[in-house]
Amino acid sequence: MPLNQQWRLVARPKGLFQPSDFRWAEEETQALADGQVLVRVVYLSLDPTNRGWAATDTYLPAVPLGEVMRGIALGRVEESRAPGFAVGDVVTGMLGWQRYAVLPAAALTKLPPIPLPLTAHLGLLGHIGITAWVGLLQVGQPKAGETLVVSAAAGAVGSLVGQIGKIKGLRVVGIAGSDEKCRWLTDELGFDAAVNYKKRPVLAGLRRECPKGIDVFFDNVGGAMLEAALWLINLRARIVVCGLISQYNATAPVPGPANLGNLLVQRARMEGFIVLDHLDQAERAAAELVQWHLAGRLKYRLEVVEGLESAVGAVNRLFEGTNTGKLIVRVSAE
Amino acid sequence: MPLNQQWRLVARPKGLFQPSDFRWAEEETQALADGQVLVRVVYLSLDPTNRGWAATDTYLPAVPLGEVMRGIALGRVEESRAPGFAVGDVVTGMLGWQRYAVLPAAALTKLPPIPLPLTAHLGLLGHIGITAWVGLLQVGQPKAGETLVVSAAAGAVGSLVGQIGKIKGLRVVGIAGSDEKCRWLTDELGFDAAVNYKKRPVLAGLRRECPKGIDVFFDNVGGAMLEAALWLINLRARIVVCGLISQYNATAPVPGPANLGNLLVQRARMEGFIVLDHLDQAERAAAELVQWHLAGRLKYRLEVVEGLESAVGAVNRLFEGTNTGKLIVRVSAE
Repeated sequence: MPLNQQWRLVARPKGLFQPSDFRWAEEETQALADGQVLVRVVYLSLDPTNRGWAATDTYLPAVPLGEVMRGIALGRVEESRAPGFAVGDVVTGMLGWQRYAVLPAAALTKLPPIPLPLTAHLGLLGHIGITAWVGLLQVGQPKAGETLVVSAAAGAVGSLVGQIGKIKGLRVVGIAGSDEKCRWLTDELGFDAAVNYKKRPVLAGLRRECPKGIDVFFDNVGGAMLEAALWLINLRARIVVCGLISQYNATAPVPGPANLGNLLVQRARMEGFIVLDHLDQAERAAAELVQWHLAGRLKYRLEVVEGLESAVGAVNRLFEGTNTGKLIVRVSAE
Repeated sequence: MPLNQQWRLVARPKGLFQPSDFRWAEEETQALADGQVLVRVVYLSLDPTNRGWAATDTYLPAVPLGEVMRGIALGRVEESRAPGFAVGDVVTGMLGWQRYAVLPAAALTKLPPIPLPLTAHLGLLGHIGITAWVGLLQVGQPKAGETLVVSAAAGAVGSLVGQIGKIKGLRVVGIAGSDEKCRWLTDELGFDAAVNYKKRPVLAGLRRECPKGIDVFFDNVGGAMLEAALWLINLRARIVVCGLISQYNATAPVPGPANLGNLLVQRARMEGFIVLDHLDQAERAAAELVQWHLAGRLKYRLEVVEGLESAVGAVNRLFEGTNTGKLIVRVSAE
């Protein structure tokens, strides 16, 4: 069996990830039992939710200390003792921050061929695409003509959400952290407007760009973004709680918005969702996402970091906002 | 026309209502125009939402300074120039804090005869009953076997919500502010448990009384109650935002709960509603509420304050928690 290399989690992060939260490990890959598959990791997805998995029990139990860091990834089957999986198949699952994963077949999803590069499975489809598609369309229930605001709009999920909003006939306003990101949203992705929250108070920016108020707020950030949006929600607005990236690295409790009462005044709904509950919709979502992309209506951007060794250094960029596009690590050749 | 007496709002309250926020006025009742009805106010309902109406625009515009204070009330038609309304009819509507109201027919609802005292229209039916019925059953979507927590559980709405929860087969835990109220909930109304939040931290109390977590939180209070409940919500929990009485009298912004992220972790929904949107369900709700009451399964308690003059002195009891039961003012004889 091949030599495996892994990032193991050895300490609970406080604030941003520290290199000392991980330990580099090398060990021989275990032999396959019946029903198991050996997968070579090709692309590892770095996601804000990684921080939660490392720190505490959330919607999944915390990664046990000493274990391989949990991560969604795409890989190739190298050896199979499970029916339905053959050498060379492209699969996805929680392969982890390592070169090789040995997993039961049930933990893997075989990916169908698509008329796009393999990386599209992580940047346009997969958990990112389903999150955007389900979160906006099913949780957010948008109607043409409404105003959609997206926080972390230049992020992997946010940028898809805004473009799907445009396809559905919404006015779309993004919130992002640099003029360059804002220009990308408006000039390349077709957002109606973008607010650089580092340059001006986000409430003032949203007030200007949402003259008819906010009907759907797709929130990846929480905190000040949520409070600003709450001031501007319309009657029966929907707030889709997709992420709270502003709080993942907090070292002390962060108070919630002081204006939650607007949920009552506006008879609004605020709802959290987790993509793992909606994987049964992957096929339906993917069909639309691919079609929109091929028609030039839905773009995505990738930032590929080279080598498993770089994962620990790269993951914090999600929280510092310095990545541009879906952040993935190339672990091995396709 | 009869001499009218009124409480007019002359200042926006800061903190609790002050007597100086109101002015007692006497004037002759205006003559009726076509389509109008003269109503003698019999029972005036005092509600926590009165504070919001006086202070600022909420789901209704703020009461203009100098105008009669807005209030839901029940009255008798004394004179009518509108088809469908006859002298002696019992009606309800925003009659205001006054002895007589002259209103267009469209602003009034004629109440059907019920096999209960007239006051049941304010304590069991009407806006209180519809709020409890719609809020729990339609917004909260409870399922038998689930755990329901109600804040301000000894209040007019909360006490009905908890009992409806028992009728629907839920485990019901109330939060209230005295041992006497808690005993009333468990011994008289059949709640499974009650937590006196003035005696022990509400989180500890809820943790003990909700061993299977919280599926529906019917919140009349906000603030610390909401934060405590959020720690204990189950997967796909529903938080019904009915009121935020902890914040109505705040003189500075009150931060929201620091654990809103649990909405995401638990894929939970938090939704505000206002009874005025659901008046079309009054009949359906009333039919069930009356039936449950007559079967001895749904009790309500009234506290009747004598005389319109007493309204200003009495309304703050809602915020101090010193009323026991639905607070109404007897303005004139039935």
